[in-house]
Amino acid sequence: MPAMAELLLMFAARAAHVEALIRPELGRGRWVVCDRFTDGTYAYQGAGRGVPSAGIDDLARVVLGDFAPDLTLLLDASWETSVSRRGSRPVTDRFEREDGEFFRRVRAGYLSRASAEPVRIRTIDASRPLTMVQADIAGVLDEFLDRAT
Amino acid sequence: MPAMAELLLMFAARAAHVEALIRPELGRGRWVVCDRFTDGTYAYQGAGRGVPSAGIDDLARVVLGDFAPDLTLLLDASWETSVSRRGSRPVTDRFEREDGEFFRRVRAGYLSRASAEPVRIRTIDASRPLTMVQADIAGVLDEFLDRAT
Repeated sequence: MPAMAELLLMFAARAAHVEALIRPELGRGRWVVCDRFTDGTYAYQGAGRGVPSAGIDDLARVVLGDFAPDLTLLLDASWETSVSRRGSRPVTDRFEREDGEFFRRVRAGYLSRASAEPVRIRTIDASRPLTMVQADIAGVLDEFLDRAT
Repeated sequence: MPAMAELLLMFAARAAHVEALIRPELGRGRWVVCDRFTDGTYAYQGAGRGVPSAGIDDLARVVLGDFAPDLTLLLDASWETSVSRRGSRPVTDRFEREDGEFFRRVRAGYLSRASAEPVRIRTIDASRPLTMVQADIAGVLDEFLDRAT
């Protein structure tokens, strides 16, 4: 599949997700926690597949306007760590079939987003044991909720 | 499905079609005849579903750049004519389930595109018998090939 087609499918799924689920829930005053959003598109289709980020900017503007997460948690670990944790779990999508070079580009894409927006995107060192990662997440959320309320 | 998601799926299919088939064939020096292209998106998702045409302009620019057909034939007939010709053929997609108002907007969308670009888009009165429609198409193609060669 051409990278541009994959990019558009990602935004089609996101547009449907935002209209059908996220906006209605926010409208009811609920908090929404979402696993991956537009930062993932910059990382996977941008840095990973090589789609120019200006095209992703344009699509994000058309599809989402200024709709964006208030807080993003980036759970960061090396490709080697991810692979060893995944163990023998079967490959379930087209991304998991990619090689280490692809995931190194994706990770660099995420880290570059995080360094450009350090207040919204909080990077958490996910190479450490689960309890430490959980404690970091709790700390970031406490801080965020203090600011938000 | 939200109209924006449908719009993005149309462009995803178009991006794949252009990269996988149309550009390679043009690169081999062949002529490509395509049933529906971006004008159809302005008609169905723009005029039909109400997506603002500025958003479609932006998507078309990101996905296609200045890639566009050299000649477009618009086979125009009223909704009533289309329905009577379709007869009892079963409904095969989500568009065919729409009502007459939807198709009147789609038709107006196509005719508005044609009046804005009368050289590229040639409107053919398809309400007439098949042989007359064929003769018109042949005439437009002869004229186009004279200009192109």
